[in-house]
Amino acid sequence: MGRLIARKPVLRLGPAGERTRPDSIAVEEPLEIRVDGKPLAVTMRTPGHDVELAHGFLHTEGVIGSPDDIRDARYCDSRDDEGRNTYNVLDLGLAPGVPSPTVGVERNFYTTSSCGVCGKASLDAVRVKTRFSPADDPIRVPLDVLASLPDRLREHQQVFDRTGGLHAAGLFTPTGELLVVREDVGRHNAVDKVVGWALLGGLIPARGCVLIVSGRTSFELAQKAVMAGIPVLGAVSAPSSLAVDLADECGLTLAGFIRNGSMNVYAHPNRITVPAPVQI
Amino acid sequence: MGRLIARKPVLRLGPAGERTRPDSIAVEEPLEIRVDGKPLAVTMRTPGHDVELAHGFLHTEGVIGSPDDIRDARYCDSRDDEGRNTYNVLDLGLAPGVPSPTVGVERNFYTTSSCGVCGKASLDAVRVKTRFSPADDPIRVPLDVLASLPDRLREHQQVFDRTGGLHAAGLFTPTGELLVVREDVGRHNAVDKVVGWALLGGLIPARGCVLIVSGRTSFELAQKAVMAGIPVLGAVSAPSSLAVDLADECGLTLAGFIRNGSMNVYAHPNRITVPAPVQI
Repeated sequence: MGRLIARKPVLRLGPAGERTRPDSIAVEEPLEIRVDGKPLAVTMRTPGHDVELAHGFLHTEGVIGSPDDIRDARYCDSRDDEGRNTYNVLDLGLAPGVPSPTVGVERNFYTTSSCGVCGKASLDAVRVKTRFSPADDPIRVPLDVLASLPDRLREHQQVFDRTGGLHAAGLFTPTGELLVVREDVGRHNAVDKVVGWALLGGLIPARGCVLIVSGRTSFELAQKAVMAGIPVLGAVSAPSSLAVDLADECGLTLAGFIRNGSMNVYAHPNRITVPAPVQI
Repeated sequence: MGRLIARKPVLRLGPAGERTRPDSIAVEEPLEIRVDGKPLAVTMRTPGHDVELAHGFLHTEGVIGSPDDIRDARYCDSRDDEGRNTYNVLDLGLAPGVPSPTVGVERNFYTTSSCGVCGKASLDAVRVKTRFSPADDPIRVPLDVLASLPDRLREHQQVFDRTGGLHAAGLFTPTGELLVVREDVGRHNAVDKVVGWALLGGLIPARGCVLIVSGRTSFELAQKAVMAGIPVLGAVSAPSSLAVDLADECGLTLAGFIRNGSMNVYAHPNRITVPAPVQI
Protein backbone atom coordinates (compact mmCIF):
# COMPACT_ATOMS: atom_id res chain seq x y z
CA MET A 1 0.00 0.00 0.00
CA GLY A 2 2.99 2.24 -0.62
CA ARG A 3 1.21 5.08 -2.40
CA LEU A 4 -2.00 4.80 -0.39
CA ILE A 5 -0.58 5.73 2.99
CA ALA A 6 1.97 8.38 3.93
CA ARG A 7 3.91 8.32 7.17
CA LYS A 8 4.23 11.74 8.80
CA PRO A 9 5.26 12.92 12.28
CA VAL A 10 2.25 13.95 14.34
CA LEU A 11 2.14 15.78 17.65
CA ARG A 12 -0.44 14.27 19.98
CA LEU A 13 -1.78 16.84 22.47
CA GLY A 14 -4.16 16.17 25.33
CA PRO A 15 -4.70 15.95 29.06
CA ALA A 16 -2.04 13.24 29.23
CA GLY A 17 0.62 15.59 27.87
CA GLU A 18 2.27 15.65 24.50
CA ARG A 19 4.26 13.25 22.37
CA THR A 20 5.41 13.09 18.77
CA ARG A 21 5.07 9.88 16.79
CA PRO A 22 4.86 8.86 13.13
CA ASP A 23 1.27 8.45 11.96
CA SER A 24 -0.39 6.91 8.90
CA ILE A 25 -2.20 9.43 6.70
CA ALA A 26 -4.36 8.73 3.65
CA VAL A 27 -2.62 9.91 0.51
CA GLU A 28 -4.51 12.42 -1.64
CA GLU A 29 -3.15 13.42 -5.04
CA PRO A 30 -4.67 14.98 -8.15
CA LEU A 31 -5.44 12.79 -11.15
CA GLU A 32 -5.79 14.55 -14.47
CA ILE A 33 -7.98 12.52 -16.81
CA ARG A 34 -7.31 13.20 -20.48
CA VAL A 35 -9.23 11.92 -23.46
CA ASP A 36 -7.29 11.64 -26.70
CA GLY A 37 -4.65 13.93 -25.22
CA LYS A 38 -7.05 16.68 -24.15
CA PRO A 39 -7.45 17.45 -20.39
CA LEU A 40 -11.04 16.69 -19.36
CA ALA A 41 -11.08 16.78 -15.56
CA VAL A 42 -8.94 16.82 -12.45
CA THR A 43 -10.08 14.89 -9.42
CA MET A 44 -8.39 14.70 -6.01
CA ARG A 45 -8.09 10.98 -5.37
CA THR A 46 -6.31 8.22 -3.51
CA PRO A 47 -3.74 6.84 -5.98
CA GLY A 48 -4.36 3.32 -7.27
CA HIS A 49 -7.02 1.74 -9.48
CA ASP A 50 -6.72 4.83 -11.68
CA VAL A 51 -7.71 3.01 -14.87
CA GLU A 52 -10.88 1.77 -13.15
CA LEU A 53 -11.51 5.28 -11.80
CA ALA A 54 -11.23 6.82 -15.27
CA HIS A 55 -13.46 4.16 -16.84
CA GLY A 56 -16.06 4.60 -14.10
CA PHE A 57 -15.94 8.38 -14.37
CA LEU A 58 -16.33 8.35 -18.15
CA HIS A 59 -19.14 5.81 -17.91
CA THR A 60 -21.14 7.56 -15.20
CA GLU A 61 -20.75 10.86 -17.07
CA GLY A 62 -22.23 9.23 -20.16
CA VAL A 63 -19.09 9.46 -22.30
CA ILE A 64 -18.59 5.69 -22.78
CA GLY A 65 -20.98 2.75 -22.58
CA SER A 66 -18.69 -0.28 -22.72
CA PRO A 67 -15.01 -1.13 -22.24
CA ASP A 68 -14.76 -1.37 -26.04
CA ASP A 69 -15.28 2.39 -26.25
CA ILE A 70 -11.76 2.87 -24.83
CA ARG A 71 -8.88 1.97 -27.17
CA ASP A 72 -6.06 2.34 -24.67
CA ALA A 73 -5.09 3.95 -21.36
CA ARG A 74 -1.63 5.15 -20.47
CA TYR A 75 0.06 7.33 -17.88
CA CYS A 76 1.64 10.41 -19.42
CA ASP A 77 5.28 11.07 -18.70
CA SER A 78 4.65 13.69 -16.00
CA ARG A 79 7.67 14.23 -13.72
CA ASP A 80 8.06 15.66 -10.26
CA ASP A 81 11.01 17.79 -9.07
CA GLU A 82 13.15 14.70 -8.63
CA GLY A 83 12.46 13.39 -12.15
CA ARG A 84 10.12 10.60 -11.05
CA ASN A 85 6.90 9.88 -12.95
CA THR A 86 4.04 11.16 -10.80
CA TYR A 87 1.52 8.72 -12.34
CA ASN A 88 -0.99 11.54 -11.91
CA VAL A 89 -1.92 12.07 -15.56
CA LEU A 90 -3.87 9.33 -17.34
CA ASP A 91 -4.68 9.59 -21.03
CA LEU A 92 -7.47 7.45 -22.48
CA GLY A 93 -7.83 6.97 -26.22
CA LEU A 94 -11.39 6.61 -27.50
CA ALA A 95 -12.20 3.85 -29.97
CA PRO A 96 -13.06 4.95 -33.52
CA GLY A 97 -16.60 6.33 -33.75
CA VAL A 98 -16.96 7.27 -30.05
CA PRO A 99 -17.80 10.99 -29.81
CA SER A 100 -15.41 13.16 -27.78
CA PRO A 101 -16.80 14.54 -24.51
CA THR A 102 -17.30 18.24 -23.96
CA VAL A 103 -14.33 19.66 -22.08
CA GLY A 104 -15.20 20.70 -18.55
CA VAL A 105 -17.89 18.07 -18.14
CA GLU A 106 -16.80 17.29 -14.59
CA ARG A 107 -19.60 18.10 -12.14
CA ASN A 108 -21.09 20.24 -14.86
CA PHE A 109 -22.90 17.76 -17.04
CA TYR A 110 -26.19 18.87 -15.52
CA THR A 111 -25.54 22.49 -16.39
CA THR A 112 -28.17 23.70 -18.80
CA SER A 113 -27.42 26.27 -21.42
CA SER A 114 -30.74 27.96 -20.72
CA CYS A 115 -31.40 29.93 -17.54
CA GLY A 116 -33.11 27.08 -15.74
CA VAL A 117 -31.08 25.04 -13.30
CA CYS A 118 -33.32 23.26 -10.85
CA GLY A 119 -33.64 19.83 -9.38
CA LYS A 120 -35.94 18.96 -12.25
CA ALA A 121 -33.33 19.89 -14.87
CA SER A 122 -30.78 17.71 -13.08
CA LEU A 123 -33.12 14.75 -13.08
CA ASP A 124 -33.91 15.34 -16.75
CA ALA A 125 -30.22 15.31 -17.62
CA VAL A 126 -29.73 11.97 -15.89
CA ARG A 127 -32.79 10.48 -17.56
CA VAL A 128 -31.56 11.49 -20.98
CA LYS A 129 -28.06 10.17 -20.40
CA THR A 130 -28.93 6.86 -18.78
CA ARG A 131 -28.34 3.90 -21.05
CA PHE A 132 -29.88 1.44 -18.60
CA SER A 133 -32.78 1.63 -16.22
CA PRO A 134 -32.78 -0.24 -12.94
CA ALA A 135 -36.60 0.09 -12.86
CA ASP A 136 -37.40 -3.37 -14.24
CA ASP A 137 -34.69 -5.27 -12.35
CA PRO A 138 -36.52 -8.09 -10.47
CA ILE A 139 -33.71 -8.55 -7.89
CA ARG A 140 -34.84 -9.24 -4.30
CA VAL A 141 -32.59 -8.75 -1.25
CA PRO A 142 -33.50 -10.15 2.17
CA LEU A 143 -33.62 -7.48 4.89
CA ASP A 144 -31.07 -9.26 7.07
CA VAL A 145 -28.59 -9.55 4.19
CA LEU A 146 -28.88 -5.86 3.29
CA ALA A 147 -28.58 -4.90 6.96
CA SER A 148 -25.32 -6.85 7.23
CA LEU A 149 -23.56 -5.31 4.22
CA PRO A 150 -22.17 -2.09 5.79
CA ASP A 151 -20.32 -4.22 8.36
CA ARG A 152 -19.03 -6.46 5.56
CA LEU A 153 -17.83 -3.34 3.73
CA ARG A 154 -16.18 -2.03 6.88
CA GLU A 155 -14.26 -5.31 7.31
CA HIS A 156 -12.59 -4.72 3.96
CA GLN A 157 -11.59 -1.07 4.45
CA GLN A 158 -7.89 -1.73 4.87
CA VAL A 159 -6.69 1.83 4.43
CA PHE A 160 -9.42 3.27 6.67
CA ASP A 161 -8.26 0.94 9.43
CA ARG A 162 -4.86 2.59 9.37
CA THR A 163 -5.78 6.21 8.66
CA GLY A 164 -9.42 6.81 9.64
CA GLY A 165 -9.63 8.94 6.54
CA LEU A 166 -11.25 7.17 3.60
CA HIS A 167 -14.64 6.65 2.04
CA ALA A 168 -15.51 3.23 0.67
CA ALA A 169 -17.90 1.68 -1.84
CA GLY A 170 -18.61 -2.01 -2.34
CA LEU A 171 -20.58 -4.09 -4.80
CA PHE A 172 -22.40 -7.19 -3.51
CA THR A 173 -24.70 -9.90 -4.83
CA PRO A 174 -28.24 -10.18 -3.36
CA THR A 175 -27.05 -13.11 -1.24
CA GLY A 176 -24.34 -10.95 0.32
CA GLU A 177 -21.36 -12.15 -1.69
CA LEU A 178 -18.74 -9.42 -1.96
CA LEU A 179 -17.70 -8.61 -5.53
CA VAL A 180 -15.38 -5.63 -5.02
CA VAL A 181 -14.46 -2.92 -2.49
CA ARG A 182 -12.67 0.32 -3.29
CA GLU A 183 -11.52 3.10 -0.95
CA ASP A 184 -10.82 6.73 -1.79
CA VAL A 185 -10.53 10.16 -0.15
CA GLY A 186 -13.44 11.17 -2.42
CA ARG A 187 -16.65 9.21 -2.10
CA HIS A 188 -17.52 9.79 -5.77
CA ASN A 189 -14.12 8.36 -6.71
CA ALA A 190 -14.73 5.23 -4.62
CA VAL A 191 -17.97 4.67 -6.55
CA ASP A 192 -16.31 5.44 -9.90
CA LYS A 193 -13.63 2.84 -9.13
CA VAL A 194 -16.28 0.23 -8.38
CA VAL A 195 -18.24 1.09 -11.54
CA GLY A 196 -15.03 1.06 -13.60
CA TRP A 197 -14.13 -2.36 -12.16
CA ALA A 198 -17.56 -3.65 -13.17
CA LEU A 199 -17.36 -2.09 -16.63
CA LEU A 200 -13.93 -3.62 -17.30
CA GLY A 201 -15.25 -6.99 -16.12
CA GLY A 202 -18.25 -6.89 -18.45
CA LEU A 203 -20.72 -6.51 -15.55
CA ILE A 204 -22.37 -3.27 -16.71
CA PRO A 205 -25.35 -2.87 -16.57
CA ALA A 206 -24.87 -4.19 -13.05
CA ARG A 207 -28.28 -5.83 -12.84
CA GLY A 208 -28.88 -7.83 -9.69
CA CYS A 209 -26.14 -5.99 -7.76
CA VAL A 210 -26.23 -4.00 -4.51
CA LEU A 211 -24.00 -0.95 -4.06
CA ILE A 212 -23.07 -0.01 -0.49
CA VAL A 213 -21.42 3.31 0.40
CA SER A 214 -19.79 4.21 3.71
CA GLY A 215 -21.27 7.67 4.22
CA ARG A 216 -24.14 9.74 2.93
CA THR A 217 -25.93 9.49 -0.40
CA SER A 218 -25.79 12.64 -2.48
CA PHE A 219 -27.48 13.19 -5.83
CA GLU A 220 -24.14 12.45 -7.46
CA LEU A 221 -23.81 8.97 -5.93
CA ALA A 222 -27.40 8.04 -6.76
CA GLN A 223 -26.82 9.25 -10.30
CA LYS A 224 -23.71 7.06 -10.65
CA ALA A 225 -25.68 4.01 -9.45
CA VAL A 226 -28.44 4.69 -11.99
CA MET A 227 -25.96 5.26 -14.81
CA ALA A 228 -24.37 1.87 -14.00
CA GLY A 229 -27.74 0.10 -13.97
CA ILE A 230 -27.41 -0.81 -10.27
CA PRO A 231 -30.89 -1.50 -8.76
CA VAL A 232 -30.16 -1.18 -5.00
CA LEU A 233 -28.11 1.50 -3.21
CA GLY A 234 -27.57 1.31 0.54
CA ALA A 235 -25.76 3.79 2.77
CA VAL A 236 -24.61 3.99 6.36
CA SER A 237 -25.87 7.54 6.69
CA ALA A 238 -28.51 9.95 5.33
CA PRO A 239 -29.49 10.71 1.73
CA SER A 240 -30.15 14.17 0.30
CA SER A 241 -33.54 15.20 -1.04
CA LEU A 242 -32.36 15.12 -4.64
CA ALA A 243 -30.90 11.63 -4.21
CA VAL A 244 -34.34 10.48 -3.01
CA ASP A 245 -36.09 12.21 -5.93
CA LEU A 246 -33.73 10.61 -8.44
CA ALA A 247 -34.10 7.14 -6.90
CA ASP A 248 -37.86 7.52 -6.89
CA GLU A 249 -38.00 8.56 -10.56
CA CYS A 250 -35.46 6.07 -11.88
CA GLY A 251 -36.61 2.92 -10.08
CA LEU A 252 -33.61 2.71 -7.74
CA THR A 253 -34.13 1.15 -4.30
CA LEU A 254 -32.54 3.58 -1.83
CA ALA A 255 -31.84 2.71 1.81
CA GLY A 256 -30.04 4.78 4.43
CA PHE A 257 -29.09 4.72 8.11
CA ILE A 258 -28.40 0.98 7.82
CA ARG A 259 -27.39 0.32 11.42
CA ASN A 260 -28.01 -2.38 14.02
CA GLY A 261 -30.22 -4.46 11.76
CA SER A 262 -32.56 -1.60 10.85
CA MET A 263 -32.74 0.88 7.99
CA ASN A 264 -34.78 3.65 6.42
CA VAL A 265 -36.01 2.99 2.89
CA TYR A 266 -36.60 6.12 0.84
CA ALA A 267 -37.59 4.69 -2.54
CA HIS A 268 -38.75 1.40 -4.08
CA PRO A 269 -38.76 -0.80 -0.95
CA ASN A 270 -40.36 -3.67 -2.88
CA ARG A 271 -36.94 -5.21 -3.59
CA ILE A 272 -36.26 -5.72 0.12
CA THR A 273 -37.88 -8.90 1.43
CA VAL A 274 -38.91 -9.23 5.04
CA PRO A 275 -39.41 -12.69 6.57
CA ALA A 276 -43.06 -13.43 7.33
CA PRO A 277 -43.91 -13.48 11.04
CA VAL A 278 -43.87 -16.96 12.55
CA GLN A 279 -47.44 -18.25 13.00
CA ILE A 280 -48.07 -20.00 16.29
CA MET B 1 -35.92 26.43 7.41
CA GLY B 2 -38.42 25.79 4.63
CA ARG B 3 -35.96 25.17 1.81
CA LEU B 4 -33.36 23.44 3.98
CA ILE B 5 -35.42 20.44 4.96
CA ALA B 6 -37.81 18.33 2.90
CA ARG B 7 -40.45 16.10 4.43
CA LYS B 8 -40.75 12.73 2.72
CA PRO B 9 -42.41 9.44 3.64
CA VAL B 10 -39.88 6.86 4.77
CA LEU B 11 -40.34 3.15 5.39
CA ARG B 12 -38.55 2.04 8.53
CA LEU B 13 -37.56 -1.66 8.37
CA GLY B 14 -36.01 -3.68 11.16
CA PRO B 15 -36.37 -6.49 13.66
CA ALA B 16 -39.30 -4.61 15.23
CA GLY B 17 -41.27 -4.74 12.00
CA GLU B 18 -42.07 -2.00 9.55
CA ARG B 19 -43.78 1.37 9.65
CA THR B 20 -44.07 4.37 7.36
CA ARG B 21 -43.65 7.86 8.70
CA PRO B 22 -42.68 11.29 7.33
CA ASP B 23 -38.99 12.05 7.80
CA SER B 24 -36.84 15.19 7.54
CA ILE B 25 -34.31 15.07 4.72
CA ALA B 26 -31.60 17.61 3.93
CA VAL B 27 -32.42 19.47 0.74
CA GLU B 28 -29.81 19.32 -2.03
CA GLU B 29 -30.21 21.44 -5.15
CA PRO B 30 -27.83 22.67 -7.84
CA LEU B 31 -26.63 26.27 -7.78
CA GLU B 32 -25.32 27.66 -11.03
CA ILE B 33 -22.88 30.48 -10.37
CA ARG B 34 -22.61 32.95 -13.24
CA VAL B 35 -20.19 35.82 -13.58
CA ASP B 36 -21.34 38.70 -15.76
CA GLY B 37 -23.98 36.42 -17.24
CA LYS B 38 -21.60 33.58 -18.15
CA PRO B 39 -21.99 30.20 -16.41
CA LEU B 40 -18.87 29.46 -14.37
CA ALA B 41 -19.70 26.49 -12.15
CA VAL B 42 -22.50 24.33 -10.82
CA THR B 43 -22.33 23.10 -7.26
CA MET B 44 -24.76 20.80 -5.47
CA ARG B 45 -25.62 22.69 -2.32
CA THR B 46 -28.10 23.21 0.50
CA PRO B 47 -30.17 26.26 -0.51
CA GLY B 48 -29.65 29.40 1.54
CA HIS B 49 -26.74 31.80 2.05
CA ASP B 50 -26.15 31.56 -1.71
CA VAL B 51 -24.66 35.04 -1.98
CA GLU B 52 -22.15 34.14 0.74
CA LEU B 53 -21.46 30.83 -1.01
CA ALA B 54 -20.75 32.54 -4.33
CA HIS B 55 -18.53 35.19 -2.70
CA GLY B 56 -16.61 32.51 -0.79
CA PHE B 57 -16.24 30.33 -3.89
CA LEU B 58 -14.97 33.22 -6.03
CA HIS B 59 -12.60 34.33 -3.29
CA THR B 60 -11.11 30.91 -2.54
CA GLU B 61 -10.67 30.30 -6.27
CA GLY B 62 -8.70 33.55 -6.51
CA VAL B 63 -11.21 35.38 -8.72
CA ILE B 64 -12.00 38.17 -6.23
CA GLY B 65 -10.09 39.63 -3.29
CA SER B 66 -12.59 41.90 -1.58
CA PRO B 67 -16.35 42.50 -1.51
CA ASP B 68 -15.73 45.59 -3.65
CA ASP B 69 -14.75 43.30 -6.53
CA ILE B 70 -18.44 42.34 -6.88
CA ARG B 71 -20.76 45.03 -8.24
CA ASP B 72 -24.04 43.18 -7.70
CA ALA B 73 -25.56 39.73 -7.18
CA ARG B 74 -29.00 38.69 -8.39
CA TYR B 75 -30.98 35.50 -8.91
CA CYS B 76 -31.79 34.89 -12.55
CA ASP B 77 -35.40 34.35 -13.49
CA SER B 78 -35.14 30.55 -13.75
CA ARG B 79 -38.53 28.82 -13.50
CA ASP B 80 -39.54 25.29 -12.61
CA ASP B 81 -42.42 23.34 -14.20
CA GLU B 82 -44.93 25.21 -12.09
CA GLY B 83 -43.60 28.64 -13.02
CA ARG B 84 -41.93 29.33 -9.69
CA ASN B 85 -38.45 30.88 -9.54
CA THR B 86 -36.04 28.10 -8.55
CA TYR B 87 -33.54 30.52 -7.00
CA ASN B 88 -30.90 28.12 -8.32
CA VAL B 89 -29.09 30.50 -10.69
CA LEU B 90 -27.08 33.37 -9.20
CA ASP B 91 -25.41 35.96 -11.42
CA LEU B 92 -22.61 38.10 -10.00
CA GLY B 93 -21.44 41.23 -11.77
CA LEU B 94 -17.74 42.04 -11.44
CA ALA B 95 -16.69 45.59 -10.60
CA PRO B 96 -14.89 47.51 -13.37
CA GLY B 97 -11.26 46.41 -13.72
CA VAL B 98 -11.69 42.96 -12.15
CA PRO B 99 -10.51 40.32 -14.66
CA SER B 100 -13.05 37.66 -15.67
CA PRO B 101 -12.32 34.13 -14.47
CA THR B 102 -11.56 31.31 -16.86
CA VAL B 103 -14.70 29.29 -17.52
CA GLY B 104 -14.55 25.84 -16.00
CA VAL B 105 -12.34 26.88 -13.10
CA GLU B 106 -14.30 24.79 -10.63
CA ARG B 107 -12.08 22.10 -9.14
CA ASN B 108 -9.77 22.64 -12.07
CA PHE B 109 -7.77 25.67 -11.08
CA TYR B 110 -4.82 23.44 -10.26
CA THR B 111 -4.85 21.88 -13.70
CA THR B 112 -1.63 22.67 -15.47
CA SER B 113 -1.46 23.11 -19.20
CA SER B 114 1.77 21.12 -19.31
CA CYS B 115 1.86 17.38 -18.71
CA GLY B 116 2.78 17.60 -15.05
CA VAL B 117 0.03 17.29 -12.50
CA CYS B 118 1.45 16.30 -9.16
CA GLY B 119 1.01 17.30 -5.56
CA LYS B 120 3.81 19.81 -6.08
CA ALA B 121 1.98 21.51 -8.96
CA SER B 122 -1.14 21.79 -6.82
CA LEU B 123 0.79 23.39 -3.98
CA ASP B 124 2.47 25.76 -6.42
CA ALA B 125 -0.89 26.85 -7.79
CA VAL B 126 -2.16 27.68 -4.32
CA ARG B 127 1.03 29.54 -3.43
CA VAL B 128 0.77 31.69 -6.54
CA LYS B 129 -2.90 32.48 -6.02
CA THR B 130 -2.81 33.22 -2.30
CA ARG B 131 -3.19 36.91 -1.54
CA PHE B 132 -2.57 36.41 2.18
CA SER B 133 -0.27 34.14 4.13
CA PRO B 134 -1.26 32.82 7.53
CA ALA B 135 2.45 32.12 8.21
CA ASP B 136 3.17 35.26 10.24
CA ASP B 137 -0.12 35.33 12.20
CA PRO B 138 0.88 35.45 15.89
CA ILE B 139 -2.48 34.08 17.12
CA ARG B 140 -2.31 31.65 20.06
CA VAL B 141 -5.12 29.24 20.99
CA PRO B 142 -5.21 27.41 24.34
CA LEU B 143 -5.43 23.63 23.93
CA ASP B 144 -8.59 23.38 26.02
CA VAL B 145 -10.35 26.03 23.94
CA LEU B 146 -9.45 24.36 20.63
CA ALA B 147 -10.48 20.98 22.02
CA SER B 148 -13.91 22.37 22.92
CA LEU B 149 -14.75 23.89 19.52
CA PRO B 150 -16.09 20.81 17.68
CA ASP B 151 -18.72 20.40 20.41
CA ARG B 152 -19.55 24.10 20.14
CA LEU B 153 -19.95 23.67 16.38
CA ARG B 154 -22.13 20.63 16.88
CA GLU B 155 -24.46 22.57 19.21
CA HIS B 156 -25.23 24.97 16.36
CA GLN B 157 -25.90 22.40 13.63
CA GLN B 158 -29.64 22.89 13.53
CA VAL B 159 -30.30 21.12 10.24
CA PHE B 160 -28.03 18.20 11.11
CA ASP B 161 -30.04 17.68 14.26
CA ARG B 162 -33.14 17.06 12.17
CA THR B 163 -31.66 15.21 9.18
CA GLY B 164 -28.32 13.67 10.17
CA GLY B 165 -27.16 14.68 6.73
CA LEU B 166 -25.11 17.86 6.69
CA HIS B 167 -21.54 19.03 6.96
CA ALA B 168 -20.75 22.13 8.98
CA ALA B 169 -18.03 24.76 9.22
CA GLY B 170 -17.63 27.41 11.90
CA LEU B 171 -15.39 30.37 12.49
CA PHE B 172 -14.27 31.15 16.07
CA THR B 173 -12.04 33.62 17.90
CA PRO B 174 -9.00 32.26 19.81
CA THR B 175 -10.96 32.63 23.05
CA GLY B 176 -13.71 30.38 21.70
CA GLU B 177 -16.27 33.00 20.72
CA LEU B 178 -18.43 31.78 17.86
CA LEU B 179 -18.49 34.11 14.84
CA VAL B 180 -20.53 32.10 12.34
CA VAL B 181 -21.72 28.55 11.56
CA ARG B 182 -22.88 27.32 8.16
CA GLU B 183 -24.24 23.91 7.16
CA ASP B 184 -24.33 22.31 3.72
CA VAL B 185 -24.59 18.93 2.00
CA GLY B 186 -21.13 19.70 0.56
CA ARG B 187 -18.34 20.34 3.01
CA HIS B 188 -16.58 22.69 0.56
CA ASN B 189 -19.81 24.70 0.30
CA ALA B 190 -20.04 25.00 4.10
CA VAL B 191 -16.53 26.46 4.13
CA ASP B 192 -17.26 28.73 1.15
CA LYS B 193 -20.32 30.09 2.96
CA VAL B 194 -18.21 30.86 6.04
CA VAL B 195 -15.50 32.52 3.95
CA GLY B 196 -18.11 34.48 2.00
CA TRP B 197 -19.70 35.64 5.25
CA ALA B 198 -16.30 36.84 6.46
CA LEU B 199 -15.52 38.53 3.14
CA LEU B 200 -18.83 40.40 3.10
CA GLY B 201 -18.20 41.48 6.71
CA GLY B 202 -14.75 42.86 5.94
CA LEU B 203 -13.01 40.12 7.93
CA ILE B 204 -10.78 38.76 5.14
CA PRO B 205 -7.89 38.09 5.63
CA ALA B 206 -9.33 36.26 8.63
CA ARG B 207 -6.27 36.77 10.82
CA GLY B 208 -6.65 35.55 14.38
CA CYS B 209 -9.52 33.22 13.47
CA VAL B 210 -9.99 29.47 13.92
CA LEU B 211 -11.91 27.45 11.32
CA ILE B 212 -13.53 24.21 12.53
CA VAL B 213 -14.95 21.60 10.12
CA SER B 214 -17.21 18.71 11.04
CA GLY B 215 -15.52 15.96 9.02
CA ARG B 216 -12.22 15.32 7.36
CA THR B 217 -9.73 17.81 5.96
CA SER B 218 -9.03 17.44 2.26
CA PHE B 219 -6.55 19.46 0.23
CA GLU B 220 -9.47 21.57 -0.96
CA LEU B 221 -10.53 22.62 2.55
CA ALA B 222 -6.97 23.45 3.62
CA GLN B 223 -6.58 25.46 0.42
CA LYS B 224 -9.73 27.45 1.18
CA ALA B 225 -8.45 28.24 4.69
CA VAL B 226 -5.12 29.46 3.31
CA MET B 227 -6.81 31.53 0.60
CA ALA B 228 -8.90 33.23 3.31
CA GLY B 229 -5.85 33.95 5.47
CA ILE B 230 -7.14 31.72 8.30
CA PRO B 231 -4.22 30.62 10.54
CA VAL B 232 -5.76 27.61 12.39
CA LEU B 233 -7.85 24.77 10.91
CA GLY B 234 -9.27 22.08 13.18
CA ALA B 235 -11.28 19.00 12.20
CA VAL B 236 -13.21 16.27 13.92
CA SER B 237 -11.66 13.63 11.68
CA ALA B 238 -8.52 12.85 9.64
CA PRO B 239 -6.65 15.03 7.14
CA SER B 240 -5.29 13.86 3.79
CA SER B 241 -1.58 13.85 2.99
CA LEU B 242 -1.89 16.80 0.62
CA ALA B 243 -3.79 18.83 3.21
CA VAL B 244 -0.89 18.26 5.61
CA ASP B 245 1.68 19.20 2.94
CA LEU B 246 -0.19 22.40 2.12
CA ALA B 247 -0.58 23.37 5.79
CA ASP B 248 3.10 22.71 6.39
CA GLU B 249 4.20 24.84 3.42
CA CYS B 250 1.78 27.72 3.96
CA GLY B 251 2.11 28.20 7.72
CA LEU B 252 -1.35 26.86 8.56
CA THR B 253 -1.84 25.16 11.95
CA LEU B 254 -3.66 21.91 11.17
CA ALA B 255 -5.29 19.75 13.87
CA GLY B 256 -7.41 16.64 13.41
CA PHE B 257 -9.18 13.96 15.45
CA ILE B 258 -10.22 16.61 17.98
CA ARG B 259 -12.11 14.38 20.40
CA ASN B 260 -12.41 14.02 24.18
CA GLY B 261 -9.98 16.83 24.94
CA SER B 262 -7.18 15.45 22.75
CA MET B 263 -6.09 16.06 19.17
CA ASN B 264 -3.42 15.29 16.59
CA VAL B 265 -1.49 18.27 15.27
CA TYR B 266 -0.09 17.81 11.78
CA ALA B 267 1.49 21.20 11.08
CA HIS B 268 2.61 24.32 12.96
CA PRO B 269 1.65 23.30 16.52
CA ASN B 270 3.32 26.44 17.94
CA ARG B 271 0.00 28.33 17.91
CA ILE B 272 -1.56 25.88 20.36
CA THR B 273 -0.65 26.71 23.96
CA VAL B 274 -0.54 24.04 26.63
CA PRO B 275 -0.81 25.02 30.33
CA ALA B 276 2.45 24.51 32.20
CA PRO B 277 2.38 21.64 34.70
CA VAL B 278 1.62 22.73 38.26
CA GLN B 279 4.84 22.82 40.33
CA ILE B 280 4.54 21.33 43.80
